[in-house]
Amino acid sequence: MYKINENYLKLPGSYLFATTGRKIREFIEANPDKKVISLGIGDVTLPLAPVVIDTLHSAVDEMGKAETFKGYAPDLGYEFLRQAIVDNDYKARGADISIDEVFVSDGAKSDSGNIGDIFDADNKIAVCDPVYPVYVDTNAMAGRTGVYLEEQQKWSNVVYMPCTAATDFAPEIPKEEPDIIYLCFPNNPTGSTIKKEELQAWVDYALKIGAVIIYDAAYEAYISEGDVPHTIFECEGAKACAIELKSFSKNAGFTGTRLGYAVVPKELKCNGVSLNSLWARRHGTKFNGAPYIIQRAGAAVYTPEGKKQTLNQVNYYMNNAKIIREGLAEAGYIVSGGVNAPYIWLQTPDKMTSWEFFDYLLEKANVAGTPGSGFGPSGEGYFRLTAFGSYENTLEAVERIRKM
Amino acid sequence: MYKINENYLKLPGSYLFATTGRKIREFIEANPDKKVISLGIGDVTLPLAPVVIDTLHSAVDEMGKAETFKGYAPDLGYEFLRQAIVDNDYKARGADISIDEVFVSDGAKSDSGNIGDIFDADNKIAVCDPVYPVYVDTNAMAGRTGVYLEEQQKWSNVVYMPCTAATDFAPEIPKEEPDIIYLCFPNNPTGSTIKKEELQAWVDYALKIGAVIIYDAAYEAYISEGDVPHTIFECEGAKACAIELKSFSKNAGFTGTRLGYAVVPKELKCNGVSLNSLWARRHGTKFNGAPYIIQRAGAAVYTPEGKKQTLNQVNYYMNNAKIIREGLAEAGYIVSGGVNAPYIWLQTPDKMTSWEFFDYLLEKANVAGTPGSGFGPSGEGYFRLTAFGSYENTLEAVERIRKM
Repeated sequence: MYKINENYLKLPGSYLFATTGRKIREFIEANPDKKVISLGIGDVTLPLAPVVIDTLHSAVDEMGKAETFKGYAPDLGYEFLRQAIVDNDYKARGADISIDEVFVSDGAKSDSGNIGDIFDADNKIAVCDPVYPVYVDTNAMAGRTGVYLEEQQKWSNVVYMPCTAATDFAPEIPKEEPDIIYLCFPNNPTGSTIKKEELQAWVDYALKIGAVIIYDAAYEAYISEGDVPHTIFECEGAKACAIELKSFSKNAGFTGTRLGYAVVPKELKCNGVSLNSLWARRHGTKFNGAPYIIQRAGAAVYTPEGKKQTLNQVNYYMNNAKIIREGLAEAGYIVSGGVNAPYIWLQTPDKMTSWEFFDYLLEKANVAGTPGSGFGPSGEGYFRLTAFGSYENTLEAVERIRKM
Repeated sequence: MYKINENYLKLPGSYLFATTGRKIREFIEANPDKKVISLGIGDVTLPLAPVVIDTLHSAVDEMGKAETFKGYAPDLGYEFLRQAIVDNDYKARGADISIDEVFVSDGAKSDSGNIGDIFDADNKIAVCDPVYPVYVDTNAMAGRTGVYLEEQQKWSNVVYMPCTAATDFAPEIPKEEPDIIYLCFPNNPTGSTIKKEELQAWVDYALKIGAVIIYDAAYEAYISEGDVPHTIFECEGAKACAIELKSFSKNAGFTGTRLGYAVVPKELKCNGVSLNSLWARRHGTKFNGAPYIIQRAGAAVYTPEGKKQTLNQVNYYMNNAKIIREGLAEAGYIVSGGVNAPYIWLQTPDKMTSWEFFDYLLEKANVAGTPGSGFGPSGEGYFRLTAFGSYENTLEAVERIRKM
């Protein structure tokens, strides 16, 4: 008799956004006259940039002619895309990454889940708390997290690094030594970030204890302040201890277009074994590339027009972030984030729990957000709003919250 | 200190097609005047069908306007595509599959690798020998296959089901009981298939011993003979023991466009746990959907024009298959396959090994194929040619082989 992966049965409830989605649907069904504005899920709303659309059209035309038709892509992704990534995201920032260290994928969610494949089940992970649920859930599926302790809302074998007002929403070096450290800056969900010297301290720590850092830089395009690192490979020694994951979802609106990449440096070795070669094997065996037309669209993002047009989109969302941040602060809320990230993190008023505030906000202002506790126990008492709505909706949502 | 997944280190050499690719490149470099025709890798060459191209263009236009822009897709895939799949690939064949049993993915290679996630490491797999390498390699990565025995070219903990001339290239019920049975019909690499009553016997066997069948039906569109099942769900009881994987790569030329789907029936349960819910969790946690524009393109394949145009492509390749099969048979080769599949399987002449024949064919006829032994030890003495070349190249390749 075959056996299932019993680790799946340890996973608590359903995915956070499935629950908020259901609650919002139920509210709308019960209140068909109310217009609910969602500042909840981190999905973009602006259409793809004109140069991306033009490039998609011409790549589609290529697929329609025998002379230019493309079948299976090269294992690591097309060189035209990997070269653009290396030149713009690394060389331009003084990070010496070569194109055979870049692996094009269908997005950072897949990569952040799949990267676990190349590690043993016997590794202790450390995550920020609150945290993007995918890191923890995928490790739970792989049997790395122990058992789920319902009451504490924690896994027994995970090192949690609280990120609260008390720590300025940054993780501190944990007492217990982890093997794999997940870091995400600019951060989802708190919208916070850390300075280059702080990230350097994490790199030094990982090198000292022999840990590997999985660095999720999906929100890098939203950095507006100086001295905030755009890639972990700006830090000295990072190539010997870090993997970086990037996405086209938030800088270029590819949430429904799907493109991302992982950087696995050749220097990154575990007892002499190159993780670059392990990931190359995984990539070549369990994946068959992102679509050609999407890879072409990704390369268009790095053209001069592409950079200008996608920067306009980022600025549009960051203006929303400013509206939310300043509007809520004026209304007396304690807010953070929203400066280098499209997320605003606020403390729930009147000692409401995160879910109580979710219900309250939905009912009183018809605005949907995401309960902080859904991202981990230290998210309790916090709430996430995103800047990905339209300008008009964002203005109205803030107005409604202020009048609440 | 973090630990890598040591199972990766047990994998022998590199991926088959990396080796044949290298040998072909080296030959071309050493013989720049020779025109090498590749009938090796199973990649298509015809451009995408006109209706698919038109649909891609209009979907791209949708992504360029705020009112029609699409962000994150529904977890299981868009309903318009899943409904088309259910209606055309299942209901039309009397198989009662519902849309919440269909999971849209980026291709059958990803699915056939990732499906292992929902099973315990302690399961014994059975595979045909020869076999598509991804089934075995991904199970080796998950630690399910024991150790690799170099001399036998086998894994110590895998049930191999020889498919040779002696078995009419079909597997026989194995002596040792497996937990997970991989079947692929029409078969890659042998091009053989089995009748419905034979597949029913496998379903009955799986139900009897409590095994699950992973049924890869990627080449279903090439079936030309009656009584060959188009889906395992034509068989009685299959919904309680089988998962089916499908691809748009070979019926519609999506190798570089990337789309596939898995059917995980709700009836499929292991000790009361629904595999449908496990796969839904995996799909929702470690994957973020195929691109909207590609899902639209997939749905276009099911329109009346789409069916007609893609059938023309299949017929084009099957005409190539006929040319290869009949040409080589006339030249005295012992060939099989090529009737319900785009693969022709031939016995190497003069007791050459598969790799000797690979070198011989490349050198004498400047034709590249794939050594049968690359697919498993029982593939030794066999060789695979594919029908995916152009008509002109296929004719010329056969001419060259006949004159060899």
